[in-house]
Amino acid sequence: MNYSIIIYIIGWVLSIESVLMLLPCLTALVFRETAGFSFLITIALCLLAGLPLVLKKPKNKLFYLREGFVATSLSWIVLSTMGALPFWISGSIPDPIDALFETVSGFTTTGASILTNVEALPRCMLIWRSFTHWIGGMGVLVFLLIILPMSGGSHMNLMKAESPGPSVNRILPKVQSTAKVLYIIYITLTAIQVLLLSLGNIPLFDALTTAFGTAGTGGFGIKNDSIAGYSAYIQIVTTVFMILFGVNFNIYYLLLIKKVRLAFSSEEVRMYFSIIIASILLITINITANGYYSSFGAALQQASFQVASIITTTGFATADFNLWPQFSKVILVMLMFIGACAGSTGGGIKISRILIMLKTVRKELRQLLHPRSIKKIQIDGKSVEHEVVRSTNVYLITFILLFAFSVLLISLEGYDLVTSFTAVAATINNIGPGLELVGPTGNFAFFSYGSKIVLIFDMLAGRLELFPLLLLFTKDTWKRF
Amino acid sequence: MNYSIIIYIIGWVLSIESVLMLLPCLTALVFRETAGFSFLITIALCLLAGLPLVLKKPKNKLFYLREGFVATSLSWIVLSTMGALPFWISGSIPDPIDALFETVSGFTTTGASILTNVEALPRCMLIWRSFTHWIGGMGVLVFLLIILPMSGGSHMNLMKAESPGPSVNRILPKVQSTAKVLYIIYITLTAIQVLLLSLGNIPLFDALTTAFGTAGTGGFGIKNDSIAGYSAYIQIVTTVFMILFGVNFNIYYLLLIKKVRLAFSSEEVRMYFSIIIASILLITINITANGYYSSFGAALQQASFQVASIITTTGFATADFNLWPQFSKVILVMLMFIGACAGSTGGGIKISRILIMLKTVRKELRQLLHPRSIKKIQIDGKSVEHEVVRSTNVYLITFILLFAFSVLLISLEGYDLVTSFTAVAATINNIGPGLELVGPTGNFAFFSYGSKIVLIFDMLAGRLELFPLLLLFTKDTWKRF
Repeated sequence: MNYSIIIYIIGWVLSIESVLMLLPCLTALVFRETAGFSFLITIALCLLAGLPLVLKKPKNKLFYLREGFVATSLSWIVLSTMGALPFWISGSIPDPIDALFETVSGFTTTGASILTNVEALPRCMLIWRSFTHWIGGMGVLVFLLIILPMSGGSHMNLMKAESPGPSVNRILPKVQSTAKVLYIIYITLTAIQVLLLSLGNIPLFDALTTAFGTAGTGGFGIKNDSIAGYSAYIQIVTTVFMILFGVNFNIYYLLLIKKVRLAFSSEEVRMYFSIIIASILLITINITANGYYSSFGAALQQASFQVASIITTTGFATADFNLWPQFSKVILVMLMFIGACAGSTGGGIKISRILIMLKTVRKELRQLLHPRSIKKIQIDGKSVEHEVVRSTNVYLITFILLFAFSVLLISLEGYDLVTSFTAVAATINNIGPGLELVGPTGNFAFFSYGSKIVLIFDMLAGRLELFPLLLLFTKDTWKRF
Repeated sequence: MNYSIIIYIIGWVLSIESVLMLLPCLTALVFRETAGFSFLITIALCLLAGLPLVLKKPKNKLFYLREGFVATSLSWIVLSTMGALPFWISGSIPDPIDALFETVSGFTTTGASILTNVEALPRCMLIWRSFTHWIGGMGVLVFLLIILPMSGGSHMNLMKAESPGPSVNRILPKVQSTAKVLYIIYITLTAIQVLLLSLGNIPLFDALTTAFGTAGTGGFGIKNDSIAGYSAYIQIVTTVFMILFGVNFNIYYLLLIKKVRLAFSSEEVRMYFSIIIASILLITINITANGYYSSFGAALQQASFQVASIITTTGFATADFNLWPQFSKVILVMLMFIGACAGSTGGGIKISRILIMLKTVRKELRQLLHPRSIKKIQIDGKSVEHEVVRSTNVYLITFILLFAFSVLLISLEGYDLVTSFTAVAATINNIGPGLELVGPTGNFAFFSYGSKIVLIFDMLAGRLELFPLLLLFTKDTWKRF
């Protein structure tokens, strides 16, 4: 392990975080909130720890995948710990584990909250909470790639560790340019959403926080009823943008360079929209037939919002789907696991992995009939490398093992099975709400320290796609060369 | 597809079934039950349909894996349909779908029942019900291999289709001899259990049916309270034999030929016993600490029985574990999926697959650290072929997809999530009882026809390890050469 370069990267992450905290500082200034001082203290601490690390450039430039994985997971842990400090220092969240839970939930774009009364928080805290979603959505290391001149291998290995999906899509030959394009698209889409939300007669503050939560597919709201209190217009804009942020960002690049046909022929995106449409229709019929909504239109709007919110792993709510009929609930639980497209800001297993899995099964059946056929799986007309199929399989197995082990640990608390199961599902897939006690009207406050730590781990593992975090727990990782 | 040979095999299966039905006939004679006539009618029908098919020997000897798969799944469907007739004709189970459900549950060694009052059935029906477990446990085609002289390829391909596990273990070079050895071990172990049970002062009839249910890891009881009413001695004997029948039968062969050290060094068997011991201990502590049993000994006995019953996918019950604390229930639900050893009569995903999966994850972590290492996974000191790893992965994916789709369909009935989830888990893994409405004191009678058909499919798919049954639904399968 090349420690010097990892420490150097962590130094940079701390420095960037201090800059990012200027937004809540500014908010505190505008709204004259004394809680803003807690950000100034944290900024000072970040710089005090970060700057000396940055100034000492690492001599050893060796940077393999393991360095990328370890640097990424340690960066996220440091980022979350420092990000939690303002909540704790200001007394907004008096318990340190709760503050950490909330911040990890923010950065990992989960949106699971331990707060029972969000509206009591100062605005500088609310905007920081939502801003963590935005930062975590595209990833802080992907951002670091843009500003930090490092040798080639390090870029790719950091990108691999932080961006979601079975394989890294480089839009442009250079990783650095890819990261830049991704951030430009991200910022542009966010800005458009803020604009459209503002047209709906809500304060700029509300528009900003809602857009941050949507863009990062996070789901923290600034109201106790999430998005339910806003107008139908705001809800519809949010529905559309949740779906847009769940699309693979490569598609937007293809649209930008006017390769429209290529963009619309993407199998992943087609499957993503097919699943969304099918789920919306099935749920709409199910909740209308069971008399939950008087009009088909109202049911359609609610079904659309909830489906978009869950499949993109955002977690905003406009209805208490915990009260919906079982069939609708099972669809939503399935969407929790499916998740959004690879290369988006969404979590879950990812559509591209599901696509590979479905094709694997079809190939197996074909191979049983024609044993000598040696066709490879194809996506978008290109053969999928054996390596990608293999890593998809390993991902699935690891996911199941971590999932089962987490449910087992949470079940020690004795809450009902559905609560334990969906609490883990909602955190490991970075969604937010689950069912029963952790449903849209519930929260995660009642869990013990032990369970909260398990769920914090699951949120980080889910966001970083398991292996970067698991690697921290093997002895071999910490060996010097 | 070589239809002639498949029809020939089905003819044989029908003929064998008519012979097997002599046992309930004899029982009817001994206990002077008129219900026995329904077996005579069925025997006549089986012979009428089967004999002509057997007499016309197939000219085309081509027999590939697909013929093995299709012959096996069609055989099981025919076997179950004819096996259900006596229940229906005699009026013991008046509804034909219910009769089919019960018989499929029997042959697949599931043990899920639609009967609310088992004790009302005539004894000839009870023994047939339990006997189906015994027949299905080792497999009727494996039996057919012993008596039927066919060309080499057909043997292996039938064996592959019917026997559980990621790869077929041939104990002896010849498939036919392997099948013979397996049945000798099976019969001997069953006989020993009958003997030991008889020593516990229960009627021979009870000893036989209980042994059939244990040997096939089925779980149909002849009392409404399953095994709970029997003495501690009977319960302990059953516990031990459930565990023994969940062991890979290769181990018994190794013991027979005195390769004791090799037998005890099997990683699969070690893992199997480790999981059993760990689960028993955790549950014993959990239920004692929560005051469910007054003495540690009583808790240990109950925990042992239930763990053995679930991990071997038998499904007998001596306690209503649905009332146990959540932690114990989650352990039991996890055991439902893990299942018994490959090459045993038990169902589930199988220990050997779990072992391969765990090693895959460990290998992945190692490979992230040392990208140039190309070590293969090893089990019992031998490299696991890429093909076996691949088929394990495909199995897992297909299992998850079928599972999720089944839960979705069952949820249309609107029962709680835990009922829907464990109803599918208990059938696809061939266990029997689940939790809540389908818990040890419940049954499957209340489900609609639609759900029962889904669960019948799941039981068959689980027993035949998915692909033989799924292959029936691809168009390509039915093409002539």
